[in-house]
Amino acid sequence: MPEWRKDPIVNRWVAIATERGKRPNDYKEINEGRNSQKCFFCEGNEEQTPPEIIAYRESGTAKDTPGWWVRVVPNKFPALDIHGASYQQARGVYQYMDGLGAHEVIIESSNHITGMNEQTEKQVEEIIWIWRDRSLDLRKDTRLKYIQVFKNTGRVAGASLEHTHSQLIAIPFVPEDVRREIEGMKEYVNRRGSCVMCDVIRQEVSEKERIVIEGNHFVSFSPFASRFPFEIWIAPREHQFDFAQLREEQVRDLAYVLKNSLGKLTSLIKNIPYNMVLHTAPVNQEEERHFHWHLEIMPRLTIMAGFELGTGYFINPTPPEIAAQALREIVQIYPVGKKYGMEVPQYV
Amino acid sequence: MPEWRKDPIVNRWVAIATERGKRPNDYKEINEGRNSQKCFFCEGNEEQTPPEIIAYRESGTAKDTPGWWVRVVPNKFPALDIHGASYQQARGVYQYMDGLGAHEVIIESSNHITGMNEQTEKQVEEIIWIWRDRSLDLRKDTRLKYIQVFKNTGRVAGASLEHTHSQLIAIPFVPEDVRREIEGMKEYVNRRGSCVMCDVIRQEVSEKERIVIEGNHFVSFSPFASRFPFEIWIAPREHQFDFAQLREEQVRDLAYVLKNSLGKLTSLIKNIPYNMVLHTAPVNQEEERHFHWHLEIMPRLTIMAGFELGTGYFINPTPPEIAAQALREIVQIYPVGKKYGMEVPQYV
Repeated sequence: MPEWRKDPIVNRWVAIATERGKRPNDYKEINEGRNSQKCFFCEGNEEQTPPEIIAYRESGTAKDTPGWWVRVVPNKFPALDIHGASYQQARGVYQYMDGLGAHEVIIESSNHITGMNEQTEKQVEEIIWIWRDRSLDLRKDTRLKYIQVFKNTGRVAGASLEHTHSQLIAIPFVPEDVRREIEGMKEYVNRRGSCVMCDVIRQEVSEKERIVIEGNHFVSFSPFASRFPFEIWIAPREHQFDFAQLREEQVRDLAYVLKNSLGKLTSLIKNIPYNMVLHTAPVNQEEERHFHWHLEIMPRLTIMAGFELGTGYFINPTPPEIAAQALREIVQIYPVGKKYGMEVPQYV
Repeated sequence: MPEWRKDPIVNRWVAIATERGKRPNDYKEINEGRNSQKCFFCEGNEEQTPPEIIAYRESGTAKDTPGWWVRVVPNKFPALDIHGASYQQARGVYQYMDGLGAHEVIIESSNHITGMNEQTEKQVEEIIWIWRDRSLDLRKDTRLKYIQVFKNTGRVAGASLEHTHSQLIAIPFVPEDVRREIEGMKEYVNRRGSCVMCDVIRQEVSEKERIVIEGNHFVSFSPFASRFPFEIWIAPREHQFDFAQLREEQVRDLAYVLKNSLGKLTSLIKNIPYNMVLHTAPVNQEEERHFHWHLEIMPRLTIMAGFELGTGYFINPTPPEIAAQALREIVQIYPVGKKYGMEVPQYV
């Protein structure tokens, strides 16, 4: 059983692999790439993953066999365990508890596609729906308080397998960083009477200079205080605190904005490594209706080093206005290309 | 002039290079190493750096010439500018101001040494003294509120030059992360009547299992809730809120504990990349006497990815008890080796 341990000074929980912990010799391969000959995530290799939790698949096909287009499985090396107990224990100044939580992998294509930008919009819609399905299912376990959906692309962004996938970690705490964001939004409402993200969207749409894509329901833009070069945020125009409130017409538009934002990004800088993180309200506690959910895409062209780790502040060498302009200038061209017999979009 | 920009939701300031900003084409060399033929930091190349701010040098030698053993220069590509104004401006929902601050480089050896572990303890003492000198000098500018001393070693930890050096960034704000740490220490005092770091040191020294080195004045240990494999904290046994309160006998002991902790670390895993960050009280505001200053050494063997960026929580595959045991088992051997005609310590 992994263990949650709390930093005694700040309320930061760390999941520690106490049993099958990595020893010094396990780190000998630093900086060497991993390259699996046989991809565990490709269609036909279903037996290489733990049994599937859910998959969108052709009717009549059996669980853990081909015929799916999006598939969710438990992480083979989970950081957390759903069978943990939720009570905290103390040893002197320290607090700890079982490593309770869930850690799932969303395999975003049955083909060996390496980026969300190579998918059709229809397929991106399916990925969004399955994120929502898992979020709704996991919150039935009332011990879980926060569901973090994220996507790592590229080795320097933490992806160990190149086959396009996202992950989901459900945890029994609301992280301080999330609380800080909630408090920031509440304070703004108290001070100004409106939602800060609604105001940000209004200002960005009006000023235009940091806009990447304006959809009917979603807007993608380079945030004013971007921490990373080419950082992109995608937010719904409508005030929604919970990502799972998404309606069908919104999902279609989000797929369009998300896919094309990533298409522009990866076309601008080939193989750009990035993390995409969902920011949404906590679950199984009083609803945080002032929260405005959104996605943050953080390219990893710079390195978070001593200054960033010490202060939580960032140094960004690329102004977001320059980033947004460069991204706007990239356009999708037709006809689309082909990969694995599928139509894939192309950008110039 | 660079620009400070504030995230409109959380109180996070980002320093943005607005003028000589990096454009998309500047990122073409992603993942390629930099290797300067001629090292700017070596003795004899003083003209390659901006003019020195201070150096400990042989008497009779001139500024910006050989004869020094520790040398501080402004960063050649500073993220901040001391000539900035300190008033904030607003544009709609956004706040910003001049990129006010200082960004200095501490060249830790006149020889092309690549790690602090290769230095003599005497030389490490000199580095600590010069950090203190710069901190005391910079705080005379009352616009500056926090002085972040840090050291990046290894390319994946953000070091662009291999010649051993540390950096210092002085900023006009107290970061939220620092405030959170101050608040955590205050809350503990209010609840328990003692300092949490003093209690942590007491417990670690008593339990022994996470101790790396016990000095007379300083203790180095693997923190209970380590975020990173082989993370090490070094704290003074005596309660001091400000790093600049260091006394001579403490500096000697810190040099011993710091050098040997890094020696063990780099001997355990060759060329281990790491960030070292000083945590100390803010300056030019009411003294935060409940704070207990310390150093945090964060090896970068794992990657901070979507989960960490979204939650501020971490997954650590190496329990600190295993890390500390492995570090304790590494010992310095005599006789010392030689490099550049200097004695350098060896560990097995």
